[in-house]
Amino acid sequence: MPSRRERIYDIIFEADTPLGKAFDVVLIISILLSVLAVMLDSVPALHARWGAFFYFLEWLFTVLFTVEYLVRLWCIGKPWAYARSFYGIVDLLGVLPAYISLLLAGSQYMLVIRLLRVLRVFRVLRLMRYVGEAQALTEAMRASRRKITVFLFTVATLVVIFGSLMFLIESPEAGFTSIPRSVYWAVVTLTTVGYGDISPLTPLGQAVSSVVMILGYAIIAVPTGIVTVELSRSMRYQTGRVCPGCGKEGHDDNARFCKFCGAELDPGHPSGE
Amino acid sequence: MPSRRERIYDIIFEADTPLGKAFDVVLIISILLSVLAVMLDSVPALHARWGAFFYFLEWLFTVLFTVEYLVRLWCIGKPWAYARSFYGIVDLLGVLPAYISLLLAGSQYMLVIRLLRVLRVFRVLRLMRYVGEAQALTEAMRASRRKITVFLFTVATLVVIFGSLMFLIESPEAGFTSIPRSVYWAVVTLTTVGYGDISPLTPLGQAVSSVVMILGYAIIAVPTGIVTVELSRSMRYQTGRVCPGCGKEGHDDNARFCKFCGAELDPGHPSGE
Amino acid sequence: MPSRRERIYDIIFEADTPLGKAFDVVLIISILLSVLAVMLDSVPALHARWGAFFYFLEWLFTVLFTVEYLVRLWCIGKPWAYARSFYGIVDLLGVLPAYISLLLAGSQYMLVIRLLRVLRVFRVLRLMRYVGEAQALTEAMRASRRKITVFLFTVATLVVIFGSLMFLIESPEAGFTSIPRSVYWAVVTLTTVGYGDISPLTPLGQAVSSVVMILGYAIIAVPTGIVTVELSRSMRYQTGRVCPGCGKEGHDDNARFCKFCGAELDPGHPSGE
Amino acid sequence: MPSRRERIYDIIFEADTPLGKAFDVVLIISILLSVLAVMLDSVPALHARWGAFFYFLEWLFTVLFTVEYLVRLWCIGKPWAYARSFYGIVDLLGVLPAYISLLLAGSQYMLVIRLLRVLRVFRVLRLMRYVGEAQALTEAMRASRRKITVFLFTVATLVVIFGSLMFLIESPEAGFTSIPRSVYWAVVTLTTVGYGDISPLTPLGQAVSSVVMILGYAIIAVPTGIVTVELSRSMRYQTGRVCPGCGKEGHDDNARFCKFCGAELDPGHPSGE
Repeated sequence: MPSRRERIYDIIFEADTPLGKAFDVVLIISILLSVLAVMLDSVPALHARWGAFFYFLEWLFTVLFTVEYLVRLWCIGKPWAYARSFYGIVDLLGVLPAYISLLLAGSQYMLVIRLLRVLRVFRVLRLMRYVGEAQALTEAMRASRRKITVFLFTVATLVVIFGSLMFLIESPEAGFTSIPRSVYWAVVTLTTVGYGDISPLTPLGQAVSSVVMILGYAIIAVPTGIVTVELSRSMRYQTGRVCPGCGKEGHDDNARFCKFCGAELDPGHPSGE
Repeated sequence: MPSRRERIYDIIFEADTPLGKAFDVVLIISILLSVLAVMLDSVPALHARWGAFFYFLEWLFTVLFTVEYLVRLWCIGKPWAYARSFYGIVDLLGVLPAYISLLLAGSQYMLVIRLLRVLRVFRVLRLMRYVGEAQALTEAMRASRRKITVFLFTVATLVVIFGSLMFLIESPEAGFTSIPRSVYWAVVTLTTVGYGDISPLTPLGQAVSSVVMILGYAIIAVPTGIVTVELSRSMRYQTGRVCPGCGKEGHDDNARFCKFCGAELDPGHPSGE
Repeated sequence: MPSRRERIYDIIFEADTPLGKAFDVVLIISILLSVLAVMLDSVPALHARWGAFFYFLEWLFTVLFTVEYLVRLWCIGKPWAYARSFYGIVDLLGVLPAYISLLLAGSQYMLVIRLLRVLRVFRVLRLMRYVGEAQALTEAMRASRRKITVFLFTVATLVVIFGSLMFLIESPEAGFTSIPRSVYWAVVTLTTVGYGDISPLTPLGQAVSSVVMILGYAIIAVPTGIVTVELSRSMRYQTGRVCPGCGKEGHDDNARFCKFCGAELDPGHPSGE
Repeated sequence: MPSRRERIYDIIFEADTPLGKAFDVVLIISILLSVLAVMLDSVPALHARWGAFFYFLEWLFTVLFTVEYLVRLWCIGKPWAYARSFYGIVDLLGVLPAYISLLLAGSQYMLVIRLLRVLRVFRVLRLMRYVGEAQALTEAMRASRRKITVFLFTVATLVVIFGSLMFLIESPEAGFTSIPRSVYWAVVTLTTVGYGDISPLTPLGQAVSSVVMILGYAIIAVPTGIVTVELSRSMRYQTGRVCPGCGKEGHDDNARFCKFCGAELDPGHPSGE
């Protein structure tokens, strides 16, 4: 029979018991509420009226998350490994700012650290039925990271060259006061964001801009193509067929033999989501 | 021989008789005209001049749609099931506002409800030859909903973190007056909309913006990839013809013989496009 | 031996002789120059200085294109069929405005008709080696037109509903003065264009806008997915294998038998562009 | 045993020795630093304060890159071929502006030429493990260049026709002062950039704009589809392993046995990702 520590571990680290699921739902709601409170507190009008209430909420959630953090440390097998893991650090960063604000006069910079709490939602998602989905996405991202790097270098080169070109063509009155600022304009234009805070005034500048826009419009096809191809690969592996010989997964729909050990596979089930 | 009720049912609920098709065409034109009238009536200049005419039109369409709604209730087998179905509620919502405006001083909020009428167009589309097409799209959407959820959570996390970061970096003068407003800016930027109502003024803010823009430019690849892969799956299944000779699949709609063994195929089902 | 008329036909309607190619190159340059002249003439400063020269150019090109049009009529087998074809009408529209301007005081509306000349470039492209490419694109477009229609109806419904919702939420001061104008805003936002001429000012309006933006950001995946899947189908057919039995094209890379008549095909060549 | 010249060749032209890799890393950092210095020097405030330092840096990098250029010429087999190659010219253009500025009063136009240095980064990338990745991208681009050309011609035609249409509809007050400027607006709108420097004011103009926006929103699917299909082709060919047992292709990189017949495959070549 599992000890109390093991049962608590199942509740807060797993999601396959009713209690574990309930804990996850409560946790995700608490996280979202605490993030919402920090955000609303930054609105001057709301801070003036509800500031004390938001202060109370912040401490309520801080105490709750501190208790949760300590319980996680207590019931896990390797507390130190957890404390140094990505989610362990995020958990700690979610509660530290409140305590630091007691010592130091509350720095604004603590705000963003507090909001990093929102990352904790992903742990809960991981536990629930979204694991496989996130894995396919992460897999595709991982597989395409080098192509994406080459693409980002190309984009960086384009914005540097077109940005400095526009710095020569356009006058400072149009907003092109320096090369970094012109490169910022090139990013705004190439990514098709187009704030309009800096926009070309001369015919030549508008012609060059048009080239940058059409370029940006066309090359967005590249990351899309890369991710689509990789996703279609990583999603092909989702069929969940296991080799009866070596136990490995990752077989294509049309595979008849295991590609790792050569054993015959069971016929594929009609795959799908 | 079908009763009058059955014949009327065929006309208004089906689209395979000439009368049924004519009814659908008249209905779709009436819906679009009534939506157009409500929209144009909201333009002050047009309301001043044609207000009475629009008022007359609104009542004309209301009476027409009321009669249609009652006839639908009368000729269908299970009127109560229809009344509670999605399209039954939309049909009712399309006529209710006019009657309510007789009792209550006409609330503005009735306007949007009136315009929900536009949803009725989809029922007519469903009846016509667009069924299969819409199904493939809905299927792909349904299959990718979990991946899309993970993607939307990632987007939400990114806009919260980058929005609060920009709240610290930029001054209120640039428009970053609170975190919710900065998060709004982050949504405007990440989705490459770029109104320009709030835009960074400091070099550091512009650098962070550039990162957000390029991020938004690159990660749009993710939903595109997901939908493309799912669509290519759901569209492949639309032509699930099997060769009676060799049992293989993958035949085109216009194929008469198996491309693998040359055996004659069964005639294709009308599988859409 | 071909008659003079046949030789001239080969030159102006075909592109497989050196003379035919030279004619196409000269024609495409003339079209682009004449379009450029019309465009530059509309710039007030240039019109003031070079107006007479542009006027001369316009007549030069008009005479040239008139001669070309008449020669086309003369050397083609069925002049009347050509005159009523798409390109025949475009050819006529390219020269008519100049003659009409002699009779009527030059209407501005003739400008756009003159610029329709630019469409003539596509005939030349069709003749050159770009035929197959354009065909694959047109084929994919044709095959996906119903799905695109469903998608466009969905977009239209979304902009009507969100536009009228924003008309209620936002005040006329923010630019939401009528429903048609609010629908225009919804189009600007959903398509991620984002002029910023109308943008929400209230927190609720900004929240609804954020939903519209993320929606627009996500559903762009749908037409992209549709076109990608259809293009990948229509490009599969490009292998150019001809059935020795019935002479039809359109066989897949892995086909061994003709899908139209069941005859055995030659083994596929290593396809490519 | 390799001569000194051969050893130096290996260091600066190859990346498979520790020294060669170290050289590449130092080179890439130098290039990025020198580009950063030129960019920052263009900011008036920084130029006023650090101008002399940036001037010193520029000469430091110029001397370094000159020495590197001369050593490259010395140790390569065919110096003249290298000097005329793409990267040879980029290398020369990276150092020439500084020397020219000694003779001529420093022209602004030298700035952009200096920044072309950033292109040198791609040579280093080519040497490192990103070769295969870039090749797949370049391959896909090359294969789809004709379809992209047809697409760009279509976009050009659309912006000319819609631009001149808007020139007629909208007044000069809205910014539509000439056809070239209206075409610029059409590019800004069709590519979904949307600066907002020129935006329609009349209802008819806004209606036409909405058509252009939805068109731009929908046809972005075309280049994306093209590149996706070509990328999926060029990436499929990267693992062109053939089964020695049944002759079928389509094996994954990590496959050891044929998934169709179970025969052992030859070990995979290091085919990139």
